[in-house]
Amino acid sequence: MFKKILITNRGDVALRVLRACKEMNIPSVIVHSTADADSMPVRLADESVCIGPPSSAESYLNIPAILSAAAITGADAVHPGVGFLSENADFAEIVAAHGLTFIGPEPHHIRAMGDKVEAKITAEAAGLPLVPGSPGAVHTIDDARKVAADVGYPLLVKAASGGGGRGMKVAETADNLAEAFSAARAEAKAAFGDDTVYLERYLGLPRHIEVQVIADAHGNVVHLGERECSIQRRHQKLFEEAPSPALTADERHKIGTVAAEATRKLGYLGVGTMEFLYENGEFFFIEMNTRLQVEHPITEAITGIDLVREQIRIAAGKPLSFSQKDVTFTGHAIECRINAEHPETFMPTPGKVTAFHAAGGPGVRVDSCLYSGYSVPPYYDSLIAKLIVYGDDRDHCLARLKRALQEFVVEPIPTTLPLHLRLVDADGIKDGSYNIRWLEEVFLAD
Amino acid sequence: MFKKILITNRGDVALRVLRACKEMNIPSVIVHSTADADSMPVRLADESVCIGPPSSAESYLNIPAILSAAAITGADAVHPGVGFLSENADFAEIVAAHGLTFIGPEPHHIRAMGDKVEAKITAEAAGLPLVPGSPGAVHTIDDARKVAADVGYPLLVKAASGGGGRGMKVAETADNLAEAFSAARAEAKAAFGDDTVYLERYLGLPRHIEVQVIADAHGNVVHLGERECSIQRRHQKLFEEAPSPALTADERHKIGTVAAEATRKLGYLGVGTMEFLYENGEFFFIEMNTRLQVEHPITEAITGIDLVREQIRIAAGKPLSFSQKDVTFTGHAIECRINAEHPETFMPTPGKVTAFHAAGGPGVRVDSCLYSGYSVPPYYDSLIAKLIVYGDDRDHCLARLKRALQEFVVEPIPTTLPLHLRLVDADGIKDGSYNIRWLEEVFLAD
Repeated sequence: MFKKILITNRGDVALRVLRACKEMNIPSVIVHSTADADSMPVRLADESVCIGPPSSAESYLNIPAILSAAAITGADAVHPGVGFLSENADFAEIVAAHGLTFIGPEPHHIRAMGDKVEAKITAEAAGLPLVPGSPGAVHTIDDARKVAADVGYPLLVKAASGGGGRGMKVAETADNLAEAFSAARAEAKAAFGDDTVYLERYLGLPRHIEVQVIADAHGNVVHLGERECSIQRRHQKLFEEAPSPALTADERHKIGTVAAEATRKLGYLGVGTMEFLYENGEFFFIEMNTRLQVEHPITEAITGIDLVREQIRIAAGKPLSFSQKDVTFTGHAIECRINAEHPETFMPTPGKVTAFHAAGGPGVRVDSCLYSGYSVPPYYDSLIAKLIVYGDDRDHCLARLKRALQEFVVEPIPTTLPLHLRLVDADGIKDGSYNIRWLEEVFLAD
Repeated sequence: MFKKILITNRGDVALRVLRACKEMNIPSVIVHSTADADSMPVRLADESVCIGPPSSAESYLNIPAILSAAAITGADAVHPGVGFLSENADFAEIVAAHGLTFIGPEPHHIRAMGDKVEAKITAEAAGLPLVPGSPGAVHTIDDARKVAADVGYPLLVKAASGGGGRGMKVAETADNLAEAFSAARAEAKAAFGDDTVYLERYLGLPRHIEVQVIADAHGNVVHLGERECSIQRRHQKLFEEAPSPALTADERHKIGTVAAEATRKLGYLGVGTMEFLYENGEFFFIEMNTRLQVEHPITEAITGIDLVREQIRIAAGKPLSFSQKDVTFTGHAIECRINAEHPETFMPTPGKVTAFHAAGGPGVRVDSCLYSGYSVPPYYDSLIAKLIVYGDDRDHCLARLKRALQEFVVEPIPTTLPLHLRLVDADGIKDGSYNIRWLEEVFLAD
């Protein structure tokens, strides 16, 4: 096992990794910016090293300073956490070149999955389903009709140079394909000076469902089921649950098996997450995250597996401590991300927390770097606490979540706690019918 | 299900029941003394009623005030919690006579188990093993030898009027029986004016092991395994774990089955705990607690069963939601009782808590009525928080417990937190070799 792990992260991610190290009796060092000198992980750390000023570029992304911290403290492994350098293939390579173990996948996997185009090619080769569409640009309406015959409707005509929804038109049926095709091209030409378009199956109200995979260096690959992460605002997840209320047992088994098989074909190492859009029983790969996810605790809750511990064990060359047949899914778990953001405007609300009281009691886990007297710095992500609640089934979990949210206190800065309290009572949550558009287009639009 | 439950308790017991009510969507009312008006359960309650001054006799034990609170608020059931009126058979009867449901066993079970002599007779009739000994007083050394031939050595000669260890002598072998017999009689005569003695198997270094049982009104009886509670000071438990590090799988199965069978023979209803002394593979019944135990969360942790919820369901006439074969024991759990007591002198330390920070992260549950700014009143039990930690196995649980204790903050009043931090590193805990004398005679004596 490692002699000492350097944790190159902050906030409750750093705390999560620190806790795993302590529970494995592995000494650890936390690097931090000057803004985080008083943070909970630094206070609880075995050792800590200040690596720069508040700016992430000069601290948490400062590779030379991080390597110096590792050298000074005698660390032999680096845990990058989530965000910052966790999906930086160059960093993983540099770490390895300095004789340290990067606790994560191989650099080439990070690199392949970090590139949108390469990720899709790699995923397809590994047997993952993509959103069906034209293989490349479509130049004429006749070609468009041929693609439509294969792909089916509704069909999205999308500008190759597009972004932000411009140059995108939906053809509901064959009747309005020509109209959508010419309108998209005209809009693309006007907006981007380029009328190249391609075609893709249009997903109207899909759900975001992701599968947790884990693989060791001995050929063992396991999936740990799915997480439902459709409650998003501007592509930021706010509320996640496992299992998904949308999947049938067959679909669950199928997508898990497909993801594990793809992981095996990729020769992937460590923990990873394959993200899919799901609609009408079909899954479409969107991307793979080659690191721990913020929402990993809900998978831990329903499987009983400590993902960070497994991640560290795998990086140390140990085999997975379980096989697919050992994995059982029990109960239901929900995570609420509590952010230092105004619950209506979502403006960040950094500042001093004079009162922090975490929910407690059965089935409640709180991962948070907050403490009474802590000042949330304005420089970083606004996530300040994760409330993870486990219940025997979804209804039980929701009832427990509500009472836990009622117990939770963060004062005086505004947080997203009131938003979550409203969410647990919303019909779209209660009946599990929500999709990726529900939060923004229904719940917040009300 | 009940329309409204009256919770006749305080502190984290009241909070535990309140949480269960909220999670079951059952409205509840908390009664409280004037000293507890600012307590956490009162703050979180749907309704609360002040029933008297700080003195328990005039508030938490004040049956007329409690019944008035039930009548005023329209409660149809009473949850007595732990302590106070929870093992008062008269209270259970009066509650029933007022047309309310007492959430607990039948009054005659409470009464039988509340009387030391009757409890042993009842237990023996139900097939529970007692400490072997003379059926009654032993008057001559010849009779003593006859009893010894049946019971074996070491043998305890015990004054019938005794107490506090006076008039007690151990005969290690037949060689010193005569000496122990006459010495005990002489000491008894001198101390109590009565030289009547009886004989009992002497247990040198036993462990306190208790079995959780649960039974519904439909004939279903289940045991939920054992809890090891040998870490005691002056018969007060401080640290409990499940499963016991001392039992073999066979012993575990055997004592669980014996306890469940006795529960069935008793016709018992609800949750209960049978306490045993254990030595050299043998169990000896000492008493049955006809209520929830403070240490119930460790059983919840390794079985996944919510005991308070089941307790309420049973009282409402519902069948158990599981059978014996559904119960599986997974992992290991430890509870530390954090008391407002000096960690060395054990003197109570009531007073204002200006900083409270609960441990968090995976596998950690905190049941506590504390909050920053709360004043621990001087009138009641000193228990202020229960830290319950779950791990995959005992070593993992101990490592996690240590890091959780390091995170836990209660300031400025002294608490037993430092004692627990010393305990987790003690050899007797690490190797699981402790017994009921270890804490006082080894650990605290050092």
